[in-house]
Amino acid sequence: MTPREQIGKQAEREYILHGKRGVTPKNLAHKMGVKLSALSQLFPTREDLILEVYRINVQEMNREREEALDRALVDSGGKPLSIESIMDARILPLARRCIEPHKGVQYQVGLSRFFTESSSIKNRILHEQFADLTQRFIDEIERALPYLPREEIRRRFQMTMAAMLGVCGILDMAAYGKEPARSEQEMWKMVHDLRDFLCEGFSAPVQDRHSPSSIHLNDGGRQWQVPLKDIACINADGDYSRVYYASGGCDMVRQTMKAWESIL
Amino acid sequence: MTPREQIGKQAEREYILHGKRGVTPKNLAHKMGVKLSALSQLFPTREDLILEVYRINVQEMNREREEALDRALVDSGGKPLSIESIMDARILPLARRCIEPHKGVQYQVGLSRFFTESSSIKNRILHEQFADLTQRFIDEIERALPYLPREEIRRRFQMTMAAMLGVCGILDMAAYGKEPARSEQEMWKMVHDLRDFLCEGFSAPVQDRHSPSSIHLNDGGRQWQVPLKDIACINADGDYSRVYYASGGCDMVRQTMKAWESIL
Repeated sequence: MTPREQIGKQAEREYILHGKRGVTPKNLAHKMGVKLSALSQLFPTREDLILEVYRINVQEMNREREEALDRALVDSGGKPLSIESIMDARILPLARRCIEPHKGVQYQVGLSRFFTESSSIKNRILHEQFADLTQRFIDEIERALPYLPREEIRRRFQMTMAAMLGVCGILDMAAYGKEPARSEQEMWKMVHDLRDFLCEGFSAPVQDRHSPSSIHLNDGGRQWQVPLKDIACINADGDYSRVYYASGGCDMVRQTMKAWESIL
Repeated sequence: MTPREQIGKQAEREYILHGKRGVTPKNLAHKMGVKLSALSQLFPTREDLILEVYRINVQEMNREREEALDRALVDSGGKPLSIESIMDARILPLARRCIEPHKGVQYQVGLSRFFTESSSIKNRILHEQFADLTQRFIDEIERALPYLPREEIRRRFQMTMAAMLGVCGILDMAAYGKEPARSEQEMWKMVHDLRDFLCEGFSAPVQDRHSPSSIHLNDGGRQWQVPLKDIACINADGDYSRVYYASGGCDMVRQTMKAWESIL
């Protein structure tokens, strides 16, 4: 291992055990018995160290995802893939890491810590590690499900990825605290349930989203839903709008006319 | 506020800012200028303090969820609810907290920290705060979608809840680091997309899960999927099994015969 890799590995251990508080150049130099100045040359700040931890973990996993897509395309002779094999390529490399005996729980903790990081770190990682890969997946899904508009594919892709992350975050948990924690076999069963669920959600016919059946109102303190059929009209009033109900009465809400246009 | 509530609020602040490391009886007593012995009488350990943080946040939210179900049942005159209104009752109280101006990001951080907690804390919270509520939701979904077997409802409920948590975890993020972070209005749009996605997934017809089209193999180092049609037979061999392929050849895998029976 190069010094860079050694430091990365140590940073990973500290990050899983103690979160970002453990990942400082000073603490790592101390734990590894190296000079702070030497370590700081490679990783000047805590943010550099945290980014390195995610790079180590994400790069290899995303390479596996690319390879799984490549393999599937060789098998299909370049023809459009099934949504099942695309989802497998995306889900299995992550699931395997979360289920691995002994190390799986640590991986899940690292994954959860990601969501406690600053927007700047999260967005840098997404941009550097995921933008191109995601584009490739979206392209393959477009070929697999040509009846879906691109916008709908992007929307569903985001939902499916969120569901995948959510499931990976609860893999080690007992179902609502009632049973003993899941066995490895049960965790794999859950991953396959996830795969089926996402494929079903992805393949569903498109609903007409240009006329939602109800809209969301927000008066600054309270939020609620109103069926569209109960609304007679909406008038702009500066940064606010007045919503007039079919049954009479009216509410002043915080949404602007422009916001309505983007929804309705 | 009672002393108990004051300590809970302070513990919440520390937890969001510094994670569980900040939540010790000693640190809290110091920050609040109270005697450690007095604080320890109410909360003897760090775990008690962390459980209190989740109780504060979850109890109120889950009461809102119950009330939303109650209201919907009054509106329906006791008739089965639509899956949309059930999902709204479950999703909106959480989404609102994650989107609230200023406080939303903090709530998301707290939510993410939950998944880094020990299994013991996670399971206690799930058991104490969620078991009954979840049962009520499952019962309502059963009435809403009577064509779904109970087992399938439980399975889908878990997927939808994971998806909800995943979406709430990424609400403040830009989509794959390419755009500016989402506005409040865009976050609400995402929540409604989530609602639609979950309702579609929940209402989908049941697939025949007793004969999966492919199975998952695991030889201890490697995991892979094989189409069921490519497998000629599976023989038990102690804690392992031998999988014979239709095209010839055989793999030794770590799954036991009992594990196969639960899947096939």
